Amino acid sequence: MGADLGGSNLRVALLDAEHRVVCRWRCAVKELAVEGVREALHRGVRAVAGSEAIQGVGVGVPGLVEPSTGTVRVAPNLVGLSGVALGPDLERDLGVPVRVENDVNAIAVGEWARGAGRGARAVLVITLGTGVGGGLILDGSLYRGPDGSAGEVGHMPLYPQGPRCACGARGCLEMYASATAVVRAAQERGVPAEGGALSVACAARSGHRAAREVLARAGRALGVAAAGLVNLLNLERIVVGGGLAGAWDLLEPHARRELERRAFSAPLERFRWVPWQLGDDAGVVGASILARESLAP
Amino acid sequence: MGADLGGSNLRVALLDAEHRVVCRWRCAVKELAVEGVREALHRGVRAVAGSEAIQGVGVGVPGLVEPSTGTVRVAPNLVGLSGVALGPDLERDLGVPVRVENDVNAIAVGEWARGAGRGARAVLVITLGTGVGGGLILDGSLYRGPDGSAGEVGHMPLYPQGPRCACGARGCLEMYASATAVVRAAQERGVPAEGGALSVACAARSGHRAAREVLARAGRALGVAAAGLVNLLNLERIVVGGGLAGAWDLLEPHARRELERRAFSAPLERFRWVPWQLGDDAGVVGASILARESLAP
Repeated sequence: MGADLGGSNLRVALLDAEHRVVCRWRCAVKELAVEGVREALHRGVRAVAGSEAIQGVGVGVPGLVEPSTGTVRVAPNLVGLSGVALGPDLERDLGVPVRVENDVNAIAVGEWARGAGRGARAVLVITLGTGVGGGLILDGSLYRGPDGSAGEVGHMPLYPQGPRCACGARGCLEMYASATAVVRAAQERGVPAEGGALSVACAARSGHRAAREVLARAGRALGVAAAGLVNLLNLERIVVGGGLAGAWDLLEPHARRELERRAFSAPLERFRWVPWQLGDDAGVVGASILARESLAP
Repeated sequence: MGADLGGSNLRVALLDAEHRVVCRWRCAVKELAVEGVREALHRGVRAVAGSEAIQGVGVGVPGLVEPSTGTVRVAPNLVGLSGVALGPDLERDLGVPVRVENDVNAIAVGEWARGAGRGARAVLVITLGTGVGGGLILDGSLYRGPDGSAGEVGHMPLYPQGPRCACGARGCLEMYASATAVVRAAQERGVPAEGGALSVACAARSGHRAAREVLARAGRALGVAAAGLVNLLNLERIVVGGGLAGAWDLLEPHARRELERRAFSAPLERFRWVPWQLGDDAGVVGASILARESLAP
């Protein structure tokens, strides 16, 4: 079973032995305390399990996680979760083994194993949503780093003297390429953005010039960041997910142009941009794969 | 045996079973054609071998290498070397197994195994010389990427609208933090730089204000780049080598300040900047270790 605890939704899914989703469940978790999250997870697991015998649950959470202990070290968007030994707590609640992992790492594993990253050995999965998240597959496995904090691509300094980011630094990629940044830039230019980033995409598709420029700017920012990363990591693919993935066709030409101007030809030969394939299922699929891996005898 | 083919020097060394240098040899290779390089290597190997029985030779070359075949794909600073099957050629010349690897990858392995990176599992070794080179140790081994081109940190876009770099892109890290960039910036500000980047350091140490500012700018550039990389890769160490390493004490405070302003606290807790320890021996030590690894039965 896989679960994906986002900033606003909890998704739980039952998966078969090939990690295909058999049954889905979802509920809003905004402003829930830890007990509420645990209770919701319990409810979701019971709802999708039905009479199936569950072998284990993988849970993706938006924060820094120690997978060996299942402890959440920091979770900026779910404040009550910081410091909580979520793995052991959930194992008591659910009566089955639980693996806790960072949510974007889970998405990355899902897309790499079953989606747009399949067959590649060096993949960055980048999610363009409220923020910009990332997960790295290197040499054919999830790269976590010594503290499990690797993959944080949203706060690469893109324009070091740029506007101040919520993280305290200046000009982070997230300030240009998140759905939030697109909406903010659209509003500043009088583009209708009440429906979020995808309504900006909608305006762009119907020819709204400022809307097109807002998305082009996000695309260029991704292309500049990608150039550094393709050179550094010899990436084969960047899989673009999250809310803005639905506008990827509008961002891609600009991302591609910046990348091709800036990266070396040797790694570029092999490189491809691809939108995610599993969409909102990526997290639960990846969490389930990670659970299977770490719980295998 | 290890060899390090730089843009201007070829170094060859005999090493004992613990990869300590027993004997060194060096000659200038500037503007040599491939035959000249092969001949020089042959001479160097005979010179340091004496009557010892050589088990194999590792060779670091400044370019993109396919270690499986020993072919040099691209070598911008040793033009005649591009496309040459250097490994097989040298095996014929020398009569022993030869492993060819990118020069900065060899330096990275040397510093990680026997120098300033010892004991860490996620290390970037960065060389500040004519250009800025890099080699990555991730999860405790050399990360090469699918084409062997990984580690190229010198052309990360640092100021995307900055001055044009020789690579065709704009504002690459190399434009700010290489020894060449320091000398150029010093000359523009009337700082004596005839003796190269270390004479700028000398002027800075004797209180020359513009010289201090030139080195501070290089340090800040490194700090900004490092922030993105520490967040992304959860690096434990950056080992600073190359000609500018001798001025690291002058760069470090500025690099550290930018990094601490910009990177997340979780990976920062573990992170350390360190100057290289093996210096000009790093390449031959690493090449010898890589040769031993790939030639082991």
